[in-house]
Amino acid sequence: MKRSERACVIIETLVQHPNRDYSLGYFAELFDCAKSSISEDLHVVRSAVNTAGYGYIETTAGAKGGVRFVPYIDNSKAIEVLESLKKELEKEDRQIGGGFLYTSDLMFNPDYIKACAMLFAKKFAACEADFIVTVETRGIGVAMLTAELLHRPLVVLGRETRVADGSTVSINYFAGSTDRIQKMSVSKRAIKPGEKAIIIDDFMRQGGSIKGIENMLKEFNAVPVGTGVVMVANGIENK
Amino acid sequence: MKRSERACVIIETLVQHPNRDYSLGYFAELFDCAKSSISEDLHVVRSAVNTAGYGYIETTAGAKGGVRFVPYIDNSKAIEVLESLKKELEKEDRQIGGGFLYTSDLMFNPDYIKACAMLFAKKFAACEADFIVTVETRGIGVAMLTAELLHRPLVVLGRETRVADGSTVSINYFAGSTDRIQKMSVSKRAIKPGEKAIIIDDFMRQGGSIKGIENMLKEFNAVPVGTGVVMVANGIENK
Repeated sequence: MKRSERACVIIETLVQHPNRDYSLGYFAELFDCAKSSISEDLHVVRSAVNTAGYGYIETTAGAKGGVRFVPYIDNSKAIEVLESLKKELEKEDRQIGGGFLYTSDLMFNPDYIKACAMLFAKKFAACEADFIVTVETRGIGVAMLTAELLHRPLVVLGRETRVADGSTVSINYFAGSTDRIQKMSVSKRAIKPGEKAIIIDDFMRQGGSIKGIENMLKEFNAVPVGTGVVMVANGIENK
Repeated sequence: MKRSERACVIIETLVQHPNRDYSLGYFAELFDCAKSSISEDLHVVRSAVNTAGYGYIETTAGAKGGVRFVPYIDNSKAIEVLESLKKELEKEDRQIGGGFLYTSDLMFNPDYIKACAMLFAKKFAACEADFIVTVETRGIGVAMLTAELLHRPLVVLGRETRVADGSTVSINYFAGSTDRIQKMSVSKRAIKPGEKAIIIDDFMRQGGSIKGIENMLKEFNAVPVGTGVVMVANGIENK
């Protein structure tokens, strides 16, 4: 197999499995060649990844040394998608009345939220979080894609307890957007003490559900290390 | 830029945007070279993608001619992941009692459900569906990843109506697994008449929620063209 083809196989494998370590030995075995050849292939891979603007290649040295693809989105690409999202949101027929905006379609449309997930993955790559957390429902799409890009599990807090979750922890919180006390619930085994979490949600008006998620994390002695929200209502103080 | 580097950039761009068409002109402009060079780069790309086993390259001829990456998972890779999922499910501490199994963690863990999504994307690639549909909550993760791989929007049916969905359509259905009448609801503007849908869900016991989703599609004169479920309870007749 030629260098160009090996480089392509390496890049496809890495991009399909973002933030996952592959040893040089893995590829050496796959191609039946020396690790030093793989090292040289990686020069091509690294340079191409930099050109494409969707990520970068990270290598770790030593016995456990390996290579991984870290997803990234450059500013011009990010702005392009956020502008198109803004344009969608400004369409008049999205206004439902009562100050509500129809956004359910956008929040599960990969054209928009994959880019948001890449922005979150870029921002939180260095956090070394143990898991991503969201509360159902409309943030699950972007949270799932972020979890995949960061190669971390996603924990979804529920609005009600579920039989199949076994014993659960529940909290009540004040949801400013609906002016009601709401409940969040999650299985006791979903989170371990001391774990670090990245909070992802689709929308924030007064920050009630974000605070709710933070309170839930406290119940487990888990620590929020980052918070990403797709849309924040204007004129409200951001936390 | 050398062929090997161009090929790497092409493959990364395509893999990051599965099932999306890119014209040869797009890459020719990006690299400032002739379309014929891109054509030759694609030989390398195609051959590498076949070797990696995570997809294939599809080209369409003509004025609108282009190239796309169709995600695919070969049988050995699929079996490997399904075996590890099976092993997880068999762990004794997953049994909650009352015949329930704790699976929430697995259903939002990219290690397991990305592979399931790739299996669904492989199976339904030819359906030319307009959208993916699921009912909240635990199927949303795998449905979202499937939607991204097939480059289609996801429609999530809710358990209750939401203010921000505007006018909605609701149906009641019998959920065998909980022995209760349950409700599904979705915005009237979420689905258009005649559209084709792929139904994705996490779990099926007696098929109640799948039938519910089908009934909801009927309300819109939309057509199910495929159904994918991650886990089906044993000893029950599959639909």
